[in-house]
Amino acid sequence: MGQVSWKGLFLSLFDYKTEKYVIAKNKKVGILYRVVQLSILAYLVGWVFVVKKGYQDTDTALQSSVITKLKGVAFTNTSELGERLWDVADYVIPPQGENVFFVMTNLIVTPNQRQTTCPESVNIPDGLCYEDEDCPAGQAVVAGNGVKTGRCLKDRDSIRGSCEVLAWCPVEKRSKPKKPLLASAENFTVFIKNSIRFPKFKFSKMNVLATNNESYLKTCHYSTEHPYCPIFLLGNIVRWAGNDFQKMALEGGVIGIQIEWNCDLDKAPSECNPHYSFSRLDNKFAEKSVSSGYNFRFAKYYRDAEGIEYRTLFKAYGIRFDVMVNGKAGKFNIIPTVINIGSGLALMGAGAFFCDLVLLYLIKKSNFYRGKKYEEVKSSSRKSLNSPTLNGNQSPDQLGGL
Amino acid sequence: MGQVSWKGLFLSLFDYKTEKYVIAKNKKVGILYRVVQLSILAYLVGWVFVVKKGYQDTDTALQSSVITKLKGVAFTNTSELGERLWDVADYVIPPQGENVFFVMTNLIVTPNQRQTTCPESVNIPDGLCYEDEDCPAGQAVVAGNGVKTGRCLKDRDSIRGSCEVLAWCPVEKRSKPKKPLLASAENFTVFIKNSIRFPKFKFSKMNVLATNNESYLKTCHYSTEHPYCPIFLLGNIVRWAGNDFQKMALEGGVIGIQIEWNCDLDKAPSECNPHYSFSRLDNKFAEKSVSSGYNFRFAKYYRDAEGIEYRTLFKAYGIRFDVMVNGKAGKFNIIPTVINIGSGLALMGAGAFFCDLVLLYLIKKSNFYRGKKYEEVKSSSRKSLNSPTLNGNQSPDQLGGL
Amino acid sequence: MGQVSWKGLFLSLFDYKTEKYVIAKNKKVGILYRVVQLSILAYLVGWVFVVKKGYQDTDTALQSSVITKLKGVAFTNTSELGERLWDVADYVIPPQGENVFFVMTNLIVTPNQRQTTCPESVNIPDGLCYEDEDCPAGQAVVAGNGVKTGRCLKDRDSIRGSCEVLAWCPVEKRSKPKKPLLASAENFTVFIKNSIRFPKFKFSKMNVLATNNESYLKTCHYSTEHPYCPIFLLGNIVRWAGNDFQKMALEGGVIGIQIEWNCDLDKAPSECNPHYSFSRLDNKFAEKSVSSGYNFRFAKYYRDAEGIEYRTLFKAYGIRFDVMVNGKAGKFNIIPTVINIGSGLALMGAGAFFCDLVLLYLIKKSNFYRGKKYEEVKSSSRKSLNSPTLNGNQSPDQLGGL
Repeated sequence: MGQVSWKGLFLSLFDYKTEKYVIAKNKKVGILYRVVQLSILAYLVGWVFVVKKGYQDTDTALQSSVITKLKGVAFTNTSELGERLWDVADYVIPPQGENVFFVMTNLIVTPNQRQTTCPESVNIPDGLCYEDEDCPAGQAVVAGNGVKTGRCLKDRDSIRGSCEVLAWCPVEKRSKPKKPLLASAENFTVFIKNSIRFPKFKFSKMNVLATNNESYLKTCHYSTEHPYCPIFLLGNIVRWAGNDFQKMALEGGVIGIQIEWNCDLDKAPSECNPHYSFSRLDNKFAEKSVSSGYNFRFAKYYRDAEGIEYRTLFKAYGIRFDVMVNGKAGKFNIIPTVINIGSGLALMGAGAFFCDLVLLYLIKKSNFYRGKKYEEVKSSSRKSLNSPTLNGNQSPDQLGGL
Repeated sequence: MGQVSWKGLFLSLFDYKTEKYVIAKNKKVGILYRVVQLSILAYLVGWVFVVKKGYQDTDTALQSSVITKLKGVAFTNTSELGERLWDVADYVIPPQGENVFFVMTNLIVTPNQRQTTCPESVNIPDGLCYEDEDCPAGQAVVAGNGVKTGRCLKDRDSIRGSCEVLAWCPVEKRSKPKKPLLASAENFTVFIKNSIRFPKFKFSKMNVLATNNESYLKTCHYSTEHPYCPIFLLGNIVRWAGNDFQKMALEGGVIGIQIEWNCDLDKAPSECNPHYSFSRLDNKFAEKSVSSGYNFRFAKYYRDAEGIEYRTLFKAYGIRFDVMVNGKAGKFNIIPTVINIGSGLALMGAGAFFCDLVLLYLIKKSNFYRGKKYEEVKSSSRKSLNSPTLNGNQSPDQLGGL
Repeated sequence: MGQVSWKGLFLSLFDYKTEKYVIAKNKKVGILYRVVQLSILAYLVGWVFVVKKGYQDTDTALQSSVITKLKGVAFTNTSELGERLWDVADYVIPPQGENVFFVMTNLIVTPNQRQTTCPESVNIPDGLCYEDEDCPAGQAVVAGNGVKTGRCLKDRDSIRGSCEVLAWCPVEKRSKPKKPLLASAENFTVFIKNSIRFPKFKFSKMNVLATNNESYLKTCHYSTEHPYCPIFLLGNIVRWAGNDFQKMALEGGVIGIQIEWNCDLDKAPSECNPHYSFSRLDNKFAEKSVSSGYNFRFAKYYRDAEGIEYRTLFKAYGIRFDVMVNGKAGKFNIIPTVINIGSGLALMGAGAFFCDLVLLYLIKKSNFYRGKKYEEVKSSSRKSLNSPTLNGNQSPDQLGGL
């Protein structure tokens, strides 16, 4: 292996090795293979590239900021509260205008609660009693409002009463109005400002269109005719989610407002627009069950002239809106393009393998083709001779070709 | 190239071309190849298809809505607040029942703060002074409670005092109770309602089982025996997260409640169930460091008879619970199936390539096999002759086969 | 097919079949193929393995908990509020210290609002009137503060007035201070505690370094010199987001604080550190438009000596900070390594296919090589003869090789 040999080795590096093919003049398998090839090509071009945009690099890690602002007032006249006007500061909780906001539509008010003793509500099983022994002092009422004092309070003639509790007294009554208090919340509007950013592509956009004039944004309402107006009527949102506002206002519920950004950044930025959809997130079917509706309790605390604290307890029913933003942006990139073409070609190999199976084992002359495809070589013991056995025809037992 | 030639061209389109193989009657490499094939097959079937469910299209973009509701009362008797009963409206912040909620377990109360002047707390280094010059008027105390007025307030005999500040006075004392105020919060319960939706498959579910009767949901508590009961004892949650409730109640902390939905939608919907796990999210090890615990300050504002505002400042210690929902749903789909089979076959090719290396370069008769695998062709200058050199045996320098 | 045949079949299973290659002594195509191979290898090693760390299994489903705590006081002296000191409990909304917090920097206060009747603000178009008929009783003022009572209130000599409304009176004036009230909020600091967990790798970390001494954490401020100090000056955050604090304080805005964890878990845990970046999330360009700024209304409720409720309405302008955490962790894993190598080899196949096209159709002697690569076999009708046609040279019309 002198000078010459190394040169030959180097030169042979640049010889091109290509697989040797056997042409089987079998039209059936040939057509089958073309069909398989065309299917894979159609799948690759049609599905992977056109539909799924496989030539794009995608970013789904969206940065999003949501600002919400409600507008609307409601007038109520009840025996407990008298004539009262409700504005944004009254019915929106929390007031900050984040992506989750709650609009109060119904209310059980228990005013002037003070820390003292009073009978537990008769609706709470653990608060019922027949004698003082049923109310061990210091024990909290299970699912109740206070701590038992040890006395059983009964009406004059009844044998059953309810335990006296140390609590915020009087305790809450368990009845709610038959119709929603703030029924007119249906006409409130919410302005949803959503700005997003795809960090991978350094692309930012807002759902409030820059080209719109100010007066349009002050008067428009979102609908199929105005798909890019960011102002929504609460009643419409609930209706589009498939629910009745008045029913929902009574028991409360949770509505999801999905904002979806599906952006093809190979096109103009103006073609990247939000798509809104609405759905109910709590279980509307189980209407009587514990799992439906939405309510919570909160209190406003006051002090009287002597500095003694008292509070007004609110059990607020209403609709919670969860604004959820998700999105996907795609932009041409060489790497996913190469990967998709590569995996498509690998599929071609799988197609060839499948057609080989047909050719070598399923058709009539498979024995013949097997012989042609596989060239058996056996090195004789006399290595110097260099005359390998070359059998054009194989024995029928060469199943190992798979 | 007339009529006939085009017909031939068209017909040859449907000839099937298949790679020509050389059968090397070498049992060692043959067995090696079968082992490689079987390993890849086992990997493909066992890992990719059975374990990883590679035949499924998956959706991890879960839509989730969490509603939480706490129940429980606690009775305290302290010198500052007197006898007092705490209910949900008192100790849960914020009251809305979102996925993040805070249960107050300890408290430093500073009642009746008014906007006036008073000495800064002696615990704040920047508030200490020896003379009036140490307290430049108008300068805010670093990490303190107010703005210096220019006077240094000293006790009669001491040389060191603290600056007078304009602030909400009196300022907060820096001592907290040695044991948690609301120690009985351990027995509070939280009802976690979680409804999820996989938008890709239009599949919705709740963690509250529809089949359960109402009374079960009112009495059950989550445990290994009741894995689908959505009511949790706070004490248990903290214990399962590996912590002691009483210790945590004193300094505060953050507990994560993970709800994981891992759904195989090829099975019945009833088999798609949540899995709960609990962990502590703040740093419990650095117990004395600034990075442990959880507390914040808030105030309740009042007006006295003259309309002057005053407030009660609370420094609330407690446990914040973060309910985090994640999930994955899978359903049979032809495309990932095809892709996984394709990439498995590509691996087979890699296996064959590896065995080729062994056959052609590592075994004894590799020279012979190299000659058989590679058929050297050289076009003579007399192109019409069409008699290519066909060498059954190659020179040993054909390393370029890789 | 007796005993012998089955044995042969079994033995042939362990024959190794390897593709037969034709060596084309064509240096041009040979070099082309080597270039393609090297490119793919460079892509595979350089891009996929070194840059993209394709040998790692990654986890992007980060669990994160954020605790924020503000420090700082501000002194203001206005005609409406008098001398007043603002501390954390006054200007941070909500107080809990979650990942989204709002710092109030400007304020329109409307004190002592009561439920009664008063003229609607003259700035609201729907509240303007010329006569009583313009104010139908019971109708809510669009984008206004109350419900019309039916009267049109006019100044003595003017022909245009505004409707009387039942509302929280007096209604809010629509003017805000020309300069921010809490301008000194620029010097407030926020301590951001962020603990993360990659559940797949059971790896937890905090952004507060354990090795730091306590006094460092009490005095440091985040900057390029102190990249791991978790205490931020609000003024700096706004400046790094490319904005002017005083301008932003006037109208409000939203600032995103991105914390990115990009961890290579094959290295030491101490090399996994957070990276902070800051950006403005609301639209700062459209300064005069409805889409810029951030404000909301909230109220504090009081009761007078007679128990009548009144409130102070705040329209709060300020800066909302959204702490957003995302991250990625990678750790060596055999499966993605195998997949990436496999797909790289599939690309090699694509390269060979491309070179084949050149060899067989684009170079001068392509006809000759086509003949060598494809071996035409035709089974004669006399199957027993087993003498297939073996043509070393093909007709030029075999385009079907693709």
